[in-house]
Amino acid sequence: MILLTSDTETKPTQAMRQAIATAEVGDEQKGEDPTVNQLLERVADLLGKEAALFFACGTICNFVAIKTHTRPADVVLVEQMAHIIRAESGGAAMTSGVLMEPIASDRGIFTVNALAQSLERVATAPYLYSSIPRLLCVEQTHNFGGGSVWQLNELRQVCEFSRQKGLATHMDGARLLNAVVASQTPAKDFAGCVDSVWIDFTKGLGAPIGAVLAGTREFIAEARRYKHIFGGAMRQAGIVAAGCLYALDHHVERLQEDHDNATYLAQRLSEIEGITVQDPKPETNIVFFDVSRLGLDKAMFLTLLQQGGVKMGAVGHSIRAVTHLDVSRADIDFAVDAISKVAKSSWH
Amino acid sequence: MILLTSDTETKPTQAMRQAIATAEVGDEQKGEDPTVNQLLERVADLLGKEAALFFACGTICNFVAIKTHTRPADVVLVEQMAHIIRAESGGAAMTSGVLMEPIASDRGIFTVNALAQSLERVATAPYLYSSIPRLLCVEQTHNFGGGSVWQLNELRQVCEFSRQKGLATHMDGARLLNAVVASQTPAKDFAGCVDSVWIDFTKGLGAPIGAVLAGTREFIAEARRYKHIFGGAMRQAGIVAAGCLYALDHHVERLQEDHDNATYLAQRLSEIEGITVQDPKPETNIVFFDVSRLGLDKAMFLTLLQQGGVKMGAVGHSIRAVTHLDVSRADIDFAVDAISKVAKSSWH
Amino acid sequence: MILLTSDTETKPTQAMRQAIATAEVGDEQKGEDPTVNQLLERVADLLGKEAALFFACGTICNFVAIKTHTRPADVVLVEQMAHIIRAESGGAAMTSGVLMEPIASDRGIFTVNALAQSLERVATAPYLYSSIPRLLCVEQTHNFGGGSVWQLNELRQVCEFSRQKGLATHMDGARLLNAVVASQTPAKDFAGCVDSVWIDFTKGLGAPIGAVLAGTREFIAEARRYKHIFGGAMRQAGIVAAGCLYALDHHVERLQEDHDNATYLAQRLSEIEGITVQDPKPETNIVFFDVSRLGLDKAMFLTLLQQGGVKMGAVGHSIRAVTHLDVSRADIDFAVDAISKVAKSSWH
Amino acid sequence: MILLTSDTETKPTQAMRQAIATAEVGDEQKGEDPTVNQLLERVADLLGKEAALFFACGTICNFVAIKTHTRPADVVLVEQMAHIIRAESGGAAMTSGVLMEPIASDRGIFTVNALAQSLERVATAPYLYSSIPRLLCVEQTHNFGGGSVWQLNELRQVCEFSRQKGLATHMDGARLLNAVVASQTPAKDFAGCVDSVWIDFTKGLGAPIGAVLAGTREFIAEARRYKHIFGGAMRQAGIVAAGCLYALDHHVERLQEDHDNATYLAQRLSEIEGITVQDPKPETNIVFFDVSRLGLDKAMFLTLLQQGGVKMGAVGHSIRAVTHLDVSRADIDFAVDAISKVAKSSWH
Repeated sequence: MILLTSDTETKPTQAMRQAIATAEVGDEQKGEDPTVNQLLERVADLLGKEAALFFACGTICNFVAIKTHTRPADVVLVEQMAHIIRAESGGAAMTSGVLMEPIASDRGIFTVNALAQSLERVATAPYLYSSIPRLLCVEQTHNFGGGSVWQLNELRQVCEFSRQKGLATHMDGARLLNAVVASQTPAKDFAGCVDSVWIDFTKGLGAPIGAVLAGTREFIAEARRYKHIFGGAMRQAGIVAAGCLYALDHHVERLQEDHDNATYLAQRLSEIEGITVQDPKPETNIVFFDVSRLGLDKAMFLTLLQQGGVKMGAVGHSIRAVTHLDVSRADIDFAVDAISKVAKSSWH
Repeated sequence: MILLTSDTETKPTQAMRQAIATAEVGDEQKGEDPTVNQLLERVADLLGKEAALFFACGTICNFVAIKTHTRPADVVLVEQMAHIIRAESGGAAMTSGVLMEPIASDRGIFTVNALAQSLERVATAPYLYSSIPRLLCVEQTHNFGGGSVWQLNELRQVCEFSRQKGLATHMDGARLLNAVVASQTPAKDFAGCVDSVWIDFTKGLGAPIGAVLAGTREFIAEARRYKHIFGGAMRQAGIVAAGCLYALDHHVERLQEDHDNATYLAQRLSEIEGITVQDPKPETNIVFFDVSRLGLDKAMFLTLLQQGGVKMGAVGHSIRAVTHLDVSRADIDFAVDAISKVAKSSWH
Repeated sequence: MILLTSDTETKPTQAMRQAIATAEVGDEQKGEDPTVNQLLERVADLLGKEAALFFACGTICNFVAIKTHTRPADVVLVEQMAHIIRAESGGAAMTSGVLMEPIASDRGIFTVNALAQSLERVATAPYLYSSIPRLLCVEQTHNFGGGSVWQLNELRQVCEFSRQKGLATHMDGARLLNAVVASQTPAKDFAGCVDSVWIDFTKGLGAPIGAVLAGTREFIAEARRYKHIFGGAMRQAGIVAAGCLYALDHHVERLQEDHDNATYLAQRLSEIEGITVQDPKPETNIVFFDVSRLGLDKAMFLTLLQQGGVKMGAVGHSIRAVTHLDVSRADIDFAVDAISKVAKSSWH
Repeated sequence: MILLTSDTETKPTQAMRQAIATAEVGDEQKGEDPTVNQLLERVADLLGKEAALFFACGTICNFVAIKTHTRPADVVLVEQMAHIIRAESGGAAMTSGVLMEPIASDRGIFTVNALAQSLERVATAPYLYSSIPRLLCVEQTHNFGGGSVWQLNELRQVCEFSRQKGLATHMDGARLLNAVVASQTPAKDFAGCVDSVWIDFTKGLGAPIGAVLAGTREFIAEARRYKHIFGGAMRQAGIVAAGCLYALDHHVERLQEDHDNATYLAQRLSEIEGITVQDPKPETNIVFFDVSRLGLDKAMFLTLLQQGGVKMGAVGHSIRAVTHLDVSRADIDFAVDAISKVAKSSWH
C-alpha cells in the first residue's frame, strides 16, 4: 500500500532505528537527558532562538505556546484555515480560553491588510467590551493552503505590523523545513520574524515521535511550566530525540525530492480527465485535487483508490496527497496509474 | 445632554420607580421572590417557553446559555459581528472554553448557505481532529448590523437547518421586542425557533437592571446551577424585577416611537452634506452613519457633537445613534441641528 | 413566619425603599452612575483602599478577586470550611482553574502555624511538580465557623506571614461590618491587612442587592475587566446602590442588636433539654445548635419548626439561626417557644 | 553514580532497546500502530477492562481521566498527599476546573469513614450552593505514603461506598504492578474496583516512555477525544510501546527484588545513628527517612551524599530513596556506606 495520506505516515529507517537503539538517555523532565539536550541546542541554533523545549507531538507545542503568550479571554489572530483551529480538536480554546479571530486568505498566506481588517473587527467595541488581541499565529508551510510557503518578506511585513500593534507572534512551523528547502531561505530568517516557533520531526523528517518549541529563555521557562501543567513532560525521551537528531542530519535536504515528487504528481494528475488539481505547481509536498467532475464523491473515490493500492485522504471538499520519504518516484507513477483507472472506470 | 449613545442609557420613569419602591420581595436565589417569579412566568409565557431565569444583565445570559449548551472544546457558530464575540470581553471563550466560528453576513442576518459554509470549515478535518459543532447563536435584532431584524421565515430556515445538523440554537434577544414590534410578529414565534432565548429590560424597555433567559425546564435547571457557578445569583431581586414587569406592561408598544424616531433621524441625516447614512430606512432603533467625508475622525466628531449637547458613540468605523424612551422627536431635531453645525464647521 | 435562615433574608425598609426610588442613576458599566460612584467612594474610604467596584452579589466578588490575583493552576489557600469552597458552587475552581488548599482550624480562624503546614503540603514536591501558591483568602466573620471574628492581631500575623511567603491576600468580608461592630475595631484596620476585600450589603445591612470589592487602583482596574468577562456589569445600578448607601448610613451600628439577639437566642436555647448550642456566647449574629439528642433528624426538626411559624436552616450536621434587622427580641422569644414545643413533643 | 531518586530513573536495557529498534509501527493517532494496539490489548486484558489508550506519560492519564469523568465546578475527592494534587503542577485544576477535596489518611490509604467525612464537608451547604461530588481518585501504591499498598478489601470497601454515593472511581496506578507483586493480588482484582485505571511503564518497569489508561469502551472513546484536546496524541508510538511490551514480559516479577532491596535498605538505615526510617519494613520500593537528628538540613545531606556517589531526593521533610532495576543489592550496600559516612562526619 502506498501511503500518501500524510507525511506523518513516515516510518523510521533502519539507520534511524539504530540511532534510537543506541541513544544515551536520562530524565527529560529534570533536564538531564543528554540526547534531548543535544537536540534542543541544535534546534535552538537552527532557529536562532535562546532556548528550546522537547515535546512528544506538535499540537501540544501550539497549545503551550498559546497558553504562555496569552491570558484567558484574550484574542488570538489566526488564518481562517489554520491547523490550530481546523485540526486540533478545539484544544487551544479549552486550555487557553481565548477567542480565535480568523484572518482571511487564499491559501493560508495573508496580507497585512487582511490582518488589519481582523484587528479592526476585534476593536469594534471599546475597551472592556472588546477583547484584548494578544497573539498572532502563522503557519509555515500552510497545510490546508496546499503546503504554501510564506516568502520571507511577506512574513516580515505581517510580523512587524503585528508587533507594532503590541501582539506577540507564534509560528506553527510543523513543516518549516519544507519552506526552508523550497525557498532556499535559512530557518533562522523565518524564525527571526516570530517570538516562538516549533518544528515537527514526525512529518517529512521521518522521525516517529518529537517536536521542538523554541523562543527566548524566559518564554521557554514559562512554557516548561505549562508543559507540566498540560501533562506533556516525559522521562527517557532521548530514545525518541535520537530519531529527531538523525532526521536533522540526514532528512532535511532530501525534502527537495518530496517537493519534486509532489510537482510531478500534480502535473501527471492534471492530465487525467475529470481531475482538477488545485495548484499544478505545488510549492512543497502537498497536492490538493478535486474529483467531483468524475461523478464520484470523495469517500467513494478514496475507497476505490485504496482497492488499487493507494491511500490518500480528504480535506474539506478536496483529496489531499502528501509526498514524503517513504514515497518514491515509482510510487508516484503507481499512484497516478491507480487514479487513472478509478477515473476511467467512473466514466462508465 | 441628549443621550443617543445607546438605549441602555434609559432611566427609570417616575411610575417605574414607584413600582420598584413598592415591590414585594423575597430571596431570589431560593426561588422565593414573588416579583421575580411573576416576571419569570410572564416572560416564559411571552416567549412560549417552559421556564425562565432572572439575571442582572444580558451578557451573563449569553454566557450561561453557551455554558449550558456546550462542553469545553466544542464549536459555537455565531455571526461574525455578533455582540457575543465583539462586545462581551471574550467572556464566553474564557468561561466555556469553546471555539467561536464566525458566519459571514451583510448586516447580521445570515443565510442557510452561509451557515453551511461555516459548518464545512469546521468539518475540514475528520473527527478527533476537528472540533464538535454544538450550538448556533442568532442575534435579534442584530446590534452591529444596524438593528436589523430576522424575518420569521429567515430565522426558521436557519434554525431548522441547524437542528438537522444536530446543533442546539440560542437567541441573543437583547432587543427581541424591537423585532416583535417592527415586524408585527409574536415574540413566541421568533422564540419558537430556538432552544433558548433571553430578553433585556435595560435597553428600549427602560428598566435599570434585569434580563430573563428562557428555555425548557431542564435547560433552565442546569442554567440555574451555572448562574450560581458564574456568581450571578441575587437576593431580593424583586426590587429590580418590578421595574422589568412595569416595562413589560408599559414600554413595549411604544418601541414603535423609537423606530419612527430612528427613521426620522436617518432621513434628516441623509440630507446633511458629508454624512453617509448606512441605512436610510433603519428597521428598528439603531442608526449607523459615516462622517469620514467631513474630514473629521470619529473621536473629533463625537467631541464636537458633545459640545453641541448630544452624545453618540462609535462602533467600528461608524457613528452609532440609538433612539429610546428618553429621546423625543424634539430631541432628534436638536441632535440633527447639532450635527449640521458640526458638519458645516468642518468645511472650513 | 419568622425568618432566621439567614441575614440574607432581610427586606428593604420603607425608608430604604424611598432612597431607592429617588436614586440618581447613570450607566454603571461606563462609570457614570453617580449613586454607584458615591457608594464606591464611601466604601473605599471606609476600608482604606484606593478604589472599589460594585457588584450585584458577593460571590462574584470572590470569583473576580481570585481570578485577578491568580493564574490558572496556581494554589489558593483557604480555610477548610470557607464559604468560597463550601457554598459557592465550585465557581472559583471553574472560572480560575486553581487548586484550593484547605487550612485547618476550629471555627474558621486559623493560626500562622496551620497556614505554614498547608504551605508545606503545597511544597511537598519541587518546582514544576508542585503548584505555585499565590493567594490566601480569609473570611471575616467566618460564616460556618459560627460568625466567628478574626481579632486584629490574629489577622495581622497571618497576613504578614502570608506576604513574607509571597502570597497576595484577599478577605471575604461578607460580614466584615459585623466583626467591626463586635470587636470595636475600625473596618480600615481589618482591611489594611489584606490586598483586596469586599463587603456585602444584602446580609445584616439589609439592602436587597449589592456588594463592593475594594483594593488598589491597579487591582480594581483589572478586576473591572474580569467583571465584564464574568458577565457581571450592570446598567442603572444606582437604583440598588442607593439601598447600600442607605444601609451604610443607618444599619451599621444596629448590628449590635443582632449580636445581642443571637446571644440571647443561644442562651435561651441552652436551657432547652435536648438542644446542644455550639457556642453559648456567639461572637456575632450566627447561632449553631444540634438537635440530634431530640431523636429528630434535621429535616424533620426544621419542618416541625416551620409549622410552628419559624424558619431556620441546616448547615452540615447543625441547625443554623441567623439574626438580622427583620428579627426583633420578641421574635426570638417566639422562636424559642416554638423550638421548646418541638423539643417537648419529640420526647413522646 | 547510584540513582535512588526515583524509579523513573530506570534506563532501557539492551534487550529492551533491541525490542524498540525492531518495533513494527504505524500512526497511533489513527489507531493504526500495531505495536501500540498489541500493548493496549495486553493491558486491557491484564486490568480486566474493555479498552485502553496509550500516552507518553502518566500525569496526562490522570488529567484526561479526570476531565472525562467530570464537568467544570464538580468535586474530585482525593487523598490529601496524592500525586494528583501534590506533584502534577496543578494541571487537573486548570484543565478540568474542578474542586479537589482532600481525604485525610496516615500513609495514603484512607478509610470509608475518612471518605464519608470529606463527602460531608462537600455537602455542608444545600444543592446549588455546594458543588457536585463526581469522582473519587485512589493511588496504588501511594507514592508519598511510602509506597504503601491498598489491600484488596480496603480498596473494595472504599470504592463500593463511593459508588453508592454516585461517584465514579479512578485509580492512579502508576505503581499498581508493585502492589500486585507485593500483595500477590491479581491486577484485575484491584482494577475491578474502579471505573478507570492507568499504569506507568517508566517507573519500576524500566521503559523510557509510556503509560496506558484503561476503562470501558465508552470511557476510552471519550478519553481519546480529550487526548487530542490536551495535545497528547502521537504518531509512530510503537517505537516506545515496544519498550512497554518488553517490560510487561520481563520486568514485572522482578519488582520483588526492588521491594527486597527497599526492605534491606530500610533495615540497614535503621541501624545508623541519627537516621530515622519512617517505615522499617516498606511495603514496596520506596523508603522515606529523616536526617534532622544529624543536624543537617535536607539539601546539605543530599549534597554530601551525592559527593559520596549516591543521589536521593527530598519529599517534604523527608529523604526519599526508591529502588528499581538499575539498583542492585551491592548498590544498596554502597549507598548505606555513603550515608553512614555522611552521618558520621556530621557528628563532628
